[in-house]
Amino acid sequence: MPSQANPVPPPVFAATSLPAAAARGDLTAQRSTRRVTLTPKYGATPCEVDVRYLWCGAPDAPTVIVQGGISADRDAVTFGDQAAGWWQEFIGAGRTVDLDRYRVLSIDWLTPAELGHAQAISSEDQADALAALVDALGIGRVHAFIGYSYGGMTGLAFAARHPYLLDRLVLLGSAHRPHPLATAQRSVQRSIVRLGVESGQPEQALALARQLAMTTYRGSEEFVRRFASAPEYRDGRFHFPVEDYLEQAGRQFVARFDIDRYLALSESIDLHDVRPEQVPTRTTLIGTPSDRLVPLADLCELQRRLQGPASLEVIDSPYGHDAFLKESDRLAPLLREALA
Amino acid sequence: MPSQANPVPPPVFAATSLPAAAARGDLTAQRSTRRVTLTPKYGATPCEVDVRYLWCGAPDAPTVIVQGGISADRDAVTFGDQAAGWWQEFIGAGRTVDLDRYRVLSIDWLTPAELGHAQAISSEDQADALAALVDALGIGRVHAFIGYSYGGMTGLAFAARHPYLLDRLVLLGSAHRPHPLATAQRSVQRSIVRLGVESGQPEQALALARQLAMTTYRGSEEFVRRFASAPEYRDGRFHFPVEDYLEQAGRQFVARFDIDRYLALSESIDLHDVRPEQVPTRTTLIGTPSDRLVPLADLCELQRRLQGPASLEVIDSPYGHDAFLKESDRLAPLLREALA
Repeated sequence: MPSQANPVPPPVFAATSLPAAAARGDLTAQRSTRRVTLTPKYGATPCEVDVRYLWCGAPDAPTVIVQGGISADRDAVTFGDQAAGWWQEFIGAGRTVDLDRYRVLSIDWLTPAELGHAQAISSEDQADALAALVDALGIGRVHAFIGYSYGGMTGLAFAARHPYLLDRLVLLGSAHRPHPLATAQRSVQRSIVRLGVESGQPEQALALARQLAMTTYRGSEEFVRRFASAPEYRDGRFHFPVEDYLEQAGRQFVARFDIDRYLALSESIDLHDVRPEQVPTRTTLIGTPSDRLVPLADLCELQRRLQGPASLEVIDSPYGHDAFLKESDRLAPLLREALA
Repeated sequence: MPSQANPVPPPVFAATSLPAAAARGDLTAQRSTRRVTLTPKYGATPCEVDVRYLWCGAPDAPTVIVQGGISADRDAVTFGDQAAGWWQEFIGAGRTVDLDRYRVLSIDWLTPAELGHAQAISSEDQADALAALVDALGIGRVHAFIGYSYGGMTGLAFAARHPYLLDRLVLLGSAHRPHPLATAQRSVQRSIVRLGVESGQPEQALALARQLAMTTYRGSEEFVRRFASAPEYRDGRFHFPVEDYLEQAGRQFVARFDIDRYLALSESIDLHDVRPEQVPTRTTLIGTPSDRLVPLADLCELQRRLQGPASLEVIDSPYGHDAFLKESDRLAPLLREALA
C-alpha cells in the first residue's frame, strides 16, 4: 500500500473559513491544505505532497467525496459571492448531495510536478492522496465517493486500493479503462499542445486541443440542434456556427488552465487501468447512450466484472459526456438512492 | 446552368495510353486533361479550368463515374506496375465495376486556386466540371455515378444539377449535408493546419490534422480490437499503441498531400448543401452503423426526402466511414444490383 498519512499531519496553511458558510453557523467549511506521503505508481520513492482540499457541510455528518473531470478543481461547490463551483447545482443544503446531511470532500488534482521525479501521475496516485487525506482529517470511513469522468476513475482506484475506507461508489461516465478511440482523440490533443509549445504558440494550441475535446464531450444530436445553420464568409474564409462556439470554448479554457497540468492529467486518463475484479465496494454506475467518450458498452463490461454488487443506471440525455454536469433533475433521484 | 463545355474542346495534353491496359487491346484507357468552362458557386464570373481525368474500360461501353473522398484522385484504378488505385479492389475486368462491361471515368478534385478568384470550391463546382467533361468526351448519358464520401456529395450535386445526364446514383457514406459534429471535427483540423502554417510547422500540423481525421474515419470497435494494449515509456513520456498508428498515418498523408488543397477540400465538404427534393435520379444509398462521420440517421433522412426512387442498404462493418474502401465482399452484390 503506497499511501500513508503522516501520523500527526500539520496543516500547511490555516483552514480558511468561507464567509457565507460561516454565516450559517450550522455548516462547517474548510478550504485548506494537508501534507501527506505517497509513493507514485510511476516513481520509485515515497514523496511528500501538499493536498489542497475543500471539506464542507453539516458538522460530524458522513463525508462524501466528490471528484470531477481533469479540468475540475476542489471547488465543486462555492459559497457567498464566488463564481459557482463546477457541480454547484448538485451540492448544497437541501440539494441532491445535501449539505445538511453530508460533508463534501474534494481535492485539486495532483500533477507529476508535485510528485518529485515521477514519470507520470496515475489515478491510483490521486486515490492514494485522497485516502491519506481521509486518514489525516480523521474521517474514518467515507460514506460515498461520487466520481465523474477522471473523478470516477480515481474513485475506482480508491475502492480497489482502500476498500476498508469506502461504503459506496457512484461512477458518472467513468469506466475501468479509457476507450482506445478516446485515447486516440486525447493523444491528438496532447500532440497539438506539444507542437504549439515547440513552435512558440502554446496558448493557441491549448485552445485547439480544448476545441477538439469539446467535440468529444458533447452529444451528437446537440450539435445538430445548435449548429445546423449556414456559414458566414468573413476575414477571407467561411466560418461555421460550430466553429465560433468551439473557438470561444478554447479561449475560455486557456484563461483558466495550465499547459503542463493539461498534458499530465490528460495522459493520466489514458494510463488509467483498474481491474474491476479488485473492487468489492457497492457501486452505482450511471451512463447515457449519447456519451461517445465513455460508451455504455464499457459500463456494461465494468458492471459485469465488478466484484461487489453493482447496478447500471442509464439516463436519456442529449448532452453526451457532459450530461453529468447538466442533467441535475434526471440524476437527482439516482444519486439520492445511491447515497441512501 | 453555370456549367458548359467548350464546343470543340481541345485536349490540353495528349491522352496517355496506359501500358498494361494497352497490352489488353480490348480495353481502352485515357489518362488526360480537358479544358472546360464553369461558373463557380463562390465566384462571380465563368472561368476556364483544366480537368484531369482517367477514362478506362471496354470501348463504347456505358460510362460509370467513380469519385472518392477528398484525398482520392482520378486513379481509382491503375494498370501495370503502378501503385494500386484507391478503389482498385472494386474496379477491373471481372470485378464489381466490371471493365469488360463499363468504362470508368474519374477526375482529380478541383481546387479554388484553379477557379480564378473563387472564395471557395463547392461540390456543385466539381459536379459541373464533371458534367462539362462528360459533354466534352461525347459520353451522352452516364450509366451511373458511384460516389464515396465527398464523391457522393458531388454525385448528389451532379444529379440535382444535371439530371438529364445521369441514369443511376450510388452513394457510399454520403449525405445531402455534413453532420454538424463532423463539421466541428473538420473545423478543428483546418485550425490546426492554419496554426501550423502561421507558426512555421505546416507539415507537422497537417500530419496532426490527418491524425484527427483518422479518429473520425475508423470504427470505434476497430480501435478496441487493434489498440487495447499497454503504453510504452520512451523519450520522456508514455506512447500509446494507437498514437504510433496515428503518427504513421499522419506522416504518410503529408508525403502525398498539399496543405492548400487539404484546406479547400475539407472546407468544401462543410459547405456542401444539396436539397434532396431536387434529385430525381434513381438512387441507392449504402451506409453502415459504425460510420460516425455520416450517421445512418442522415442517410434515412436523405432517402425519405429524395425526389426519385431511393433504397437504403445497410452493411454491417466494423470499419466506420472507411468500410466503403475495404468491404469489397459485402459491397459487391449491392453495387452489382445498383448498376444493373
